[in-house]
Amino acid sequence: MNKVVAIQGIQGSFHHLVAQEFYGKEVQVKECMSFQELAQSLVNDETEEAVMAIENSIAGSILPNYALIDENNLKVVGEHYIPIAMNMMALKGQKIEDIKKVYSHPMALLQCKEFFKQYPHIKLIEDTDTAEVARRIAAKESKHVAAVASTAAASIFGLDILASDIHTKKSNSTRFLIISKKEKEPNGEKIDKASLKFELESRTGSLVSVLNIMRDFDLNMTKIQSMPIIETPWKYSFFIDITFDDFQRFSKAMEVLGIMTEQLRIFGTYKNKV
Amino acid sequence: MNKVVAIQGIQGSFHHLVAQEFYGKEVQVKECMSFQELAQSLVNDETEEAVMAIENSIAGSILPNYALIDENNLKVVGEHYIPIAMNMMALKGQKIEDIKKVYSHPMALLQCKEFFKQYPHIKLIEDTDTAEVARRIAAKESKHVAAVASTAAASIFGLDILASDIHTKKSNSTRFLIISKKEKEPNGEKIDKASLKFELESRTGSLVSVLNIMRDFDLNMTKIQSMPIIETPWKYSFFIDITFDDFQRFSKAMEVLGIMTEQLRIFGTYKNKV
Repeated sequence: MNKVVAIQGIQGSFHHLVAQEFYGKEVQVKECMSFQELAQSLVNDETEEAVMAIENSIAGSILPNYALIDENNLKVVGEHYIPIAMNMMALKGQKIEDIKKVYSHPMALLQCKEFFKQYPHIKLIEDTDTAEVARRIAAKESKHVAAVASTAAASIFGLDILASDIHTKKSNSTRFLIISKKEKEPNGEKIDKASLKFELESRTGSLVSVLNIMRDFDLNMTKIQSMPIIETPWKYSFFIDITFDDFQRFSKAMEVLGIMTEQLRIFGTYKNKV
Repeated sequence: MNKVVAIQGIQGSFHHLVAQEFYGKEVQVKECMSFQELAQSLVNDETEEAVMAIENSIAGSILPNYALIDENNLKVVGEHYIPIAMNMMALKGQKIEDIKKVYSHPMALLQCKEFFKQYPHIKLIEDTDTAEVARRIAAKESKHVAAVASTAAASIFGLDILASDIHTKKSNSTRFLIISKKEKEPNGEKIDKASLKFELESRTGSLVSVLNIMRDFDLNMTKIQSMPIIETPWKYSFFIDITFDDFQRFSKAMEVLGIMTEQLRIFGTYKNKV
């Protein structure tokens, strides 16, 4: 396989781990410093597919990423889950007592909030990428500073792990989407999951009708999230994930939903990995 | 009124604006540097009520804030919406061409993403609080650096506004909750909204049944969001907001939901401000 896959962050980031698990160890990646840049790399054909974090069990969905998929007309072609294990790392020889500041991604700091309560002298500072902080500490040989990142980041940048598995929820996992400019091509893999969005008026009844259709067509909802549409009060967007056994019944249901809802958009159909 | 209200961030922050609109200009506030600290100040009786951002039209809900309400057994006693208007500000005399770095809260930077595309030479750096950056620029007399914050922050810290209303969605508004240790005491104001959470198995049918009850009792849903429960696969938490006209019918519906769902928790009942 020699396709290039866009990741958010640098080598050693959690996006890189996901790319390696999904495509294999030797995957060629393009490092993007924002989700915007990642979406753009697909649009400009610099990459064929991309790995994009979409939700986790602490913070919920990263809604701006749905907007990026939507606005750039990208397709979801797969999903992947990884348990997120956070570790505190610094230059070789540094001890926890030496550390005055810890830099990491806001989500990573949030996941390790409980751990750092034991060390009130350590200042937590938000940064753009977990692995990027590790790279910077190694490159600048910065003392008294630590990163919170993956074990892969520690080994790539030669840092010592001062404390491992410091995240609070031990079974915290993050969901990533695999996205592309084109729809998923059949490769023999069973397609049993879909991500969609539609608009409805806010009457409880209209959502009940949609869910009744889903139930009638044996679609099982694994996620629902409403978002108010600012320009049109009383109207909402719904972001829904569903799983199913029978692709034909799924397609029929989408025909019905296309009539019952407004602005139905199927972001993609792919294999369920839960 | 001389109660003390906890806000996230410092004077001039959007939380401070909300406190002034909700309680009056002279409101006495306690500045908290995190939502955790804000919840703690209620638990420790340092403050009587608190203002807490809960969702906006770009990023969706701030789910960790629901967790703080839940874990600390706090009550929602009100809500407030403000349009978020972002402005770029710097030391007097600085021009946009002089600015090399802009610091602000990640959400504020996200809301101004489009504006900064015109200025690729400006580096965007995430910080903890919009107004805090403005304060720091003024205190350190830092040149070549700008903040993205409210007009109030510019006037409090004596900065010049280099560009106003630079946020992308012109009608973007943020919703704040008013929270307290105690339930809302009746003060003659109509109570017509509630925030709740419950758990269900993932079968589409179980959610349909709950929504049918809501419809039967004339409850109108203004928000729904599911979250997987990591420890129990196939089970989900649902966070729901509803509005209603008749408090007694709402109470009846909650009795039924108490039987049909698991772990029903009513975060609070309060006056709808939409």
